[in-house]
Amino acid sequence: MKTTPITAHLATLIDLALGEDLGTGDLTSQALPNREQKAVANFVAREPLVVSGLSVAALVFTRLDPSCQIKAQVAEGSRVKKGAVLARVEGPLGSLLSAERCALNFLRHLSGIATLTRRYHQTLSGTGCTLLDTRKTTPGFRALEKAAVRAGGGANHRMGLFDGVMIKDNHIAASQSIRQAVSAARKQIPPTVKIEVECDNLKQVRAALAAGAELIMLDNMSHAQMRKAVALIAGRAQTEASGNLTLATVRAAAECGVDFVSVGALTHSAPNADIALDLQGS
Amino acid sequence: MKTTPITAHLATLIDLALGEDLGTGDLTSQALPNREQKAVANFVAREPLVVSGLSVAALVFTRLDPSCQIKAQVAEGSRVKKGAVLARVEGPLGSLLSAERCALNFLRHLSGIATLTRRYHQTLSGTGCTLLDTRKTTPGFRALEKAAVRAGGGANHRMGLFDGVMIKDNHIAASQSIRQAVSAARKQIPPTVKIEVECDNLKQVRAALAAGAELIMLDNMSHAQMRKAVALIAGRAQTEASGNLTLATVRAAAECGVDFVSVGALTHSAPNADIALDLQGS
Amino acid sequence: MKTTPITAHLATLIDLALGEDLGTGDLTSQALPNREQKAVANFVAREPLVVSGLSVAALVFTRLDPSCQIKAQVAEGSRVKKGAVLARVEGPLGSLLSAERCALNFLRHLSGIATLTRRYHQTLSGTGCTLLDTRKTTPGFRALEKAAVRAGGGANHRMGLFDGVMIKDNHIAASQSIRQAVSAARKQIPPTVKIEVECDNLKQVRAALAAGAELIMLDNMSHAQMRKAVALIAGRAQTEASGNLTLATVRAAAECGVDFVSVGALTHSAPNADIALDLQGS
Amino acid sequence: MKTTPITAHLATLIDLALGEDLGTGDLTSQALPNREQKAVANFVAREPLVVSGLSVAALVFTRLDPSCQIKAQVAEGSRVKKGAVLARVEGPLGSLLSAERCALNFLRHLSGIATLTRRYHQTLSGTGCTLLDTRKTTPGFRALEKAAVRAGGGANHRMGLFDGVMIKDNHIAASQSIRQAVSAARKQIPPTVKIEVECDNLKQVRAALAAGAELIMLDNMSHAQMRKAVALIAGRAQTEASGNLTLATVRAAAECGVDFVSVGALTHSAPNADIALDLQGS
Amino acid sequence: MKTTPITAHLATLIDLALGEDLGTGDLTSQALPNREQKAVANFVAREPLVVSGLSVAALVFTRLDPSCQIKAQVAEGSRVKKGAVLARVEGPLGSLLSAERCALNFLRHLSGIATLTRRYHQTLSGTGCTLLDTRKTTPGFRALEKAAVRAGGGANHRMGLFDGVMIKDNHIAASQSIRQAVSAARKQIPPTVKIEVECDNLKQVRAALAAGAELIMLDNMSHAQMRKAVALIAGRAQTEASGNLTLATVRAAAECGVDFVSVGALTHSAPNADIALDLQGS
Amino acid sequence: MKTTPITAHLATLIDLALGEDLGTGDLTSQALPNREQKAVANFVAREPLVVSGLSVAALVFTRLDPSCQIKAQVAEGSRVKKGAVLARVEGPLGSLLSAERCALNFLRHLSGIATLTRRYHQTLSGTGCTLLDTRKTTPGFRALEKAAVRAGGGANHRMGLFDGVMIKDNHIAASQSIRQAVSAARKQIPPTVKIEVECDNLKQVRAALAAGAELIMLDNMSHAQMRKAVALIAGRAQTEASGNLTLATVRAAAECGVDFVSVGALTHSAPNADIALDLQGS
Repeated sequence: MKTTPITAHLATLIDLALGEDLGTGDLTSQALPNREQKAVANFVAREPLVVSGLSVAALVFTRLDPSCQIKAQVAEGSRVKKGAVLARVEGPLGSLLSAERCALNFLRHLSGIATLTRRYHQTLSGTGCTLLDTRKTTPGFRALEKAAVRAGGGANHRMGLFDGVMIKDNHIAASQSIRQAVSAARKQIPPTVKIEVECDNLKQVRAALAAGAELIMLDNMSHAQMRKAVALIAGRAQTEASGNLTLATVRAAAECGVDFVSVGALTHSAPNADIALDLQGS
Repeated sequence: MKTTPITAHLATLIDLALGEDLGTGDLTSQALPNREQKAVANFVAREPLVVSGLSVAALVFTRLDPSCQIKAQVAEGSRVKKGAVLARVEGPLGSLLSAERCALNFLRHLSGIATLTRRYHQTLSGTGCTLLDTRKTTPGFRALEKAAVRAGGGANHRMGLFDGVMIKDNHIAASQSIRQAVSAARKQIPPTVKIEVECDNLKQVRAALAAGAELIMLDNMSHAQMRKAVALIAGRAQTEASGNLTLATVRAAAECGVDFVSVGALTHSAPNADIALDLQGS
Repeated sequence: MKTTPITAHLATLIDLALGEDLGTGDLTSQALPNREQKAVANFVAREPLVVSGLSVAALVFTRLDPSCQIKAQVAEGSRVKKGAVLARVEGPLGSLLSAERCALNFLRHLSGIATLTRRYHQTLSGTGCTLLDTRKTTPGFRALEKAAVRAGGGANHRMGLFDGVMIKDNHIAASQSIRQAVSAARKQIPPTVKIEVECDNLKQVRAALAAGAELIMLDNMSHAQMRKAVALIAGRAQTEASGNLTLATVRAAAECGVDFVSVGALTHSAPNADIALDLQGS
Repeated sequence: MKTTPITAHLATLIDLALGEDLGTGDLTSQALPNREQKAVANFVAREPLVVSGLSVAALVFTRLDPSCQIKAQVAEGSRVKKGAVLARVEGPLGSLLSAERCALNFLRHLSGIATLTRRYHQTLSGTGCTLLDTRKTTPGFRALEKAAVRAGGGANHRMGLFDGVMIKDNHIAASQSIRQAVSAARKQIPPTVKIEVECDNLKQVRAALAAGAELIMLDNMSHAQMRKAVALIAGRAQTEASGNLTLATVRAAAECGVDFVSVGALTHSAPNADIALDLQGS
Repeated sequence: MKTTPITAHLATLIDLALGEDLGTGDLTSQALPNREQKAVANFVAREPLVVSGLSVAALVFTRLDPSCQIKAQVAEGSRVKKGAVLARVEGPLGSLLSAERCALNFLRHLSGIATLTRRYHQTLSGTGCTLLDTRKTTPGFRALEKAAVRAGGGANHRMGLFDGVMIKDNHIAASQSIRQAVSAARKQIPPTVKIEVECDNLKQVRAALAAGAELIMLDNMSHAQMRKAVALIAGRAQTEASGNLTLATVRAAAECGVDFVSVGALTHSAPNADIALDLQGS
Repeated sequence: MKTTPITAHLATLIDLALGEDLGTGDLTSQALPNREQKAVANFVAREPLVVSGLSVAALVFTRLDPSCQIKAQVAEGSRVKKGAVLARVEGPLGSLLSAERCALNFLRHLSGIATLTRRYHQTLSGTGCTLLDTRKTTPGFRALEKAAVRAGGGANHRMGLFDGVMIKDNHIAASQSIRQAVSAARKQIPPTVKIEVECDNLKQVRAALAAGAELIMLDNMSHAQMRKAVALIAGRAQTEASGNLTLATVRAAAECGVDFVSVGALTHSAPNADIALDLQGS
């Protein structure tokens, strides 16, 4: 495994997960007479789903026991049917049993997000509008969940507070005006970073545009307002519709002509995908 | 904050969460002219819910900035109405804005679990059966989610693989018989730990009882089978019903006379509770 | 090496040990002209002993220098004569010399515990009573020393405060009565964990039994009292004799009919076993 | 607490110790109704002893719970009688009970070393010879045990491999001659570090002296040999007697005129001192 | 201190620095009879300079010993004369002496960068061109050195590889064309991040512009080329002059009309500023 | 890589450096179509220089991506001409590009120090005086920079505060006299460590000598004073000249007959050496 900050973060998260489950040892598996014998197990989809997180699940096994070997049977982002084998893992029986629950907890969560994202993505088909995620992610899972969104066909908004400016109500109030808020931010950020302004109405949209915002969020606007905003902006900034968008409402928002729709539910409300680990020969 | 293993684990998880969001800095807040001024904000319920995770949300602020002060307005486990103020946080405006999303991501997740648990718990009212959680928790969140279950009125099954033995199919197969599996485990565990055997049928129940299991899981049994099992066991071991129990089915299972019902959905399928952080005066 | 919490703990302990000894470098070995040449050395028993800790000693070498290779010549728990070769280590001369003292410090300490445990174990021969250790272990060495006890023929009491309840005087005083103390504990622990009550007299034994304690410790009781307690309990709970038991007194205690005797001296008073590392050809 | 490397090392060691004992929580204490109430407890000597490690025992409490307060009643290195109160600790009852065993495990071990050292030190009274420890310390406890030696009246040999050169048989063999070994070492070490050569006979002593060694170890020599060596060296280097010295033999070795005697048993064979923690009012 | 990723990074760096210097203890200061007595010392400029790093120097003292108190006498970015007192530190004499060198090593390095940056900044006076730093920073010192550049009047280019895209020769070659390289990058980055293309000639400039690059670097171009490029771009992208710019050449480059000049030497070639720590009363 | 404290320190420093540059990912390289293809690149000297730090640069690549392979083409300490290939690195193109800047930042800094040291060393040619470095090093880089000094032909003074005593003005003032200061230090240090006293005049030199100092620093003395001091000491202690020595003045100082000259500028004022990483075939 590489030692980038992201992989170090991931290794720490996996270690927290293994640590809280294993503690001073797996009392059940350590008593198995054949716990050192090689066994094989398959990750199997128990319902149709989009796969995300296989490499993380694999890491759970190899961090617990480097002698485990995992072979993915499908690619990240694959859409699979019920019964599909997602990956095959080999290793000492005791290691497979000890890591099983932890690996499944990751895989089921991330595939759930990919599966839900795919549904949103399909709903937007043909609109030319890009589906974005948000920062409403499970603490510690930002990179994993954003990868799951990509696996489901979505794109990522900023990774965090450090690679994009987002000026909201509180910031505007603190800075007196949108113009001053944008100007103050511009002075302190690298030349490679853009500024987005969250707007509730057309007056704010005009001010944001005048201030030089590169991105304008249309927050909880009506469809009529959004259309007017898009017309008013006329390509001089990119536009993002936001505000409790659901599968039922997201397409209509996109059809207002915005460049992006962002949906928090992708990462904070996706139900687990149903996946099991089946030991071969058992 | 105490330095127990649990609090060290929690601090690491919070640091992962703050780290992935803040990275090299909150570009937006650092440009605010009044970012160092003291501000006040309230955590407000936007729907009826059961509260869990306030102390974690508080830690997010104080780890980011020790000068923040948080005062809970309700206790862990409180049932609150829409509009209730859950906690009040004071500190430099910039710190409040930088920590806001991370704190909410924890609080909404955990309160969601407590709220769902409460519904299951109420469903079991009067049965005398205890509601248990499982090990199907978000990786890294074991202790937090188990506390949320308690906040919602549930009780905790074993914390992990180290404080209880659970003998399943694979273990039985590996050990030749339930008797041998129980016996092998008994030799290796401290005298303070009990053994549970997962049983699919009455024959296994008899064997588990004969082997001296202190707990017997009735896994995916029919109600008729469960009643027979409970009668057969007759208090010589404790009994647990398990297997995709839902709000619709959990009471009937409990009424078969088992001591415990365990529900994975408490921790892996609870929707977020809707909570916001409102800055005062804005 | 696996990355379980126990192995992570062990790696940290070894790193502390190597760190305090090596600091900014082994000034003596780094000046050797042949420090990079492969050398071979044997761990040799200088007195009869029971072996424990070879895998830890091996880890000291491989953590210092992954090119070192260690081959155990006897199994954990082996009883060996003076002069026996316990393990053979190969690697760059400089690495062997730099790690030697640290590895020996571990191995001599743990083999000392195993050797002493074996003596206690033999003393109990034929009584049917199980020899247990305690929590009086060298800080940081809990798992290692408990493994050494097993290597010497003993069994382990609870690993720590988390996998067993032990109600003592102070807890009873705080809870008003044994009944209330047991009841309060029962409500907060997983169903897989047992409760032990420390009793000084028969009245307490009766109360512990009535309260449902699964284990009863007979603390510093006379042999007469212990026999009465065992008779009174009559198998309804397991029994443990405790209190400054020595090689001279432990058998008589066991013969009172208790299930367990626990001996703190196994881990806090075992003298080092005499073991050396002999370089071949030197 | 300062953040020097030594205090960071110590904090890590304490965290390992608390971690292995507390794991996911103190199941017994967390059920006490008055676990949050302030309590007071005294560390009491149960036998005459020399005190070492009070500040470490104190750190165990404050790391577990910063609200604990510890007040030493005697100084490091004090000789106390049976019944003496060594320190008084106040804090929440639950915290005192949870930290008790871990703190005692440190304190009893270190006071045991100080007590034994004192006996050796007294044995040397009037000889003018300085008592030194060795590197045969419990892994991870180097600085603590060396402080305990000082508490008992001894002095410290080098802290590790980095602040002194010690040329032994293997180094001499590898370097062809003592002269070459000393010369090679001298070229690579800071001008502030001295070189010691371990000598088995007078020929080696002469060679070490000729090579410019600042310290000469007389290893397992007879008293006659040692006297000759001391006469031969005549103050041109410092001298150290070494080799399984005991309370019975150490004074005679010192009386051979060496500057130092070094005794491994100070740190690897000292029995625990008997100390208890007594809760007040219980 | 806050626990953001940046402060955690800084704390680690300071701990590395204190660790390498203090090791097992400051042998000289620990022998001072008055090492625990409170002392006062001043950081004094020994030449005219621009101040940067006082808060880091302060952290060195407080991390070593939390009882130290530091009071800055001038602000970050101040231009001071020879003899000016920059900060005053109080604390135990031993702590001041132990931390002195480490704190000075930070402060002299960072003030050196601020001082050099100020010279470049003055050279550009009136051009309207912004002075930028680069990623040629001392490993581990990125945030500190970028703050020193701001203290000296400069601005910061991207913090690292994660908050800006910079397409260079190798990237263009790998992607076949500038258009394809920009397009590929655009698909994978958040909507808040801009793309810069490094161009050696006007043909590349035209391609970068056509591809939609928001920033264009004019790398090692002649002044004539740069003027043509600026005219050609005509405000449709921002422009940056780069390539071994010195105090002698930077103004002429700026006068070609570019928005930014970037200078690696600010961070990799600034000589130390001369600062000392003077103990009062000594 | 070995796991000594020094290598652990180094790994932490490299991780800080990679972390600050890579953050959440290399946005530019991750978009390259051929980022996974194997590429080859050479480190090339762009000016004559002395090489130091190749193994560190190599570690940057392998820590980022263990599949990278680096092969040094010249040894540490080699003097090379402009155009010389110092090392060759192979690995996935994306990994090479992501690690390039970080590796160069290390290598250029350390080779700069080695190159400058070589110049000082040559200046001293034939004097028999040894060139020493100081503790004025970049925080965190102590071991690396001291290795660079050795690569350039210099020798190392003490590594830090723990392996040598250096008594300065403040220490003397605090201890009343040089005699008392030396005596107090002697009592607390291992017998393997020497004491140096910093002297400003001959009176202090005499006192230091009388006190038994093994090393005497002649601090900012005139050449005449130094000669007198050397004559006065007459080999009874080693001598070190110190105080803003430059290439212009160092030889004259050495010719006063001192054993050592120490130069802070070696590590705090060496300009970067000019080295680039050239991708093959690009």
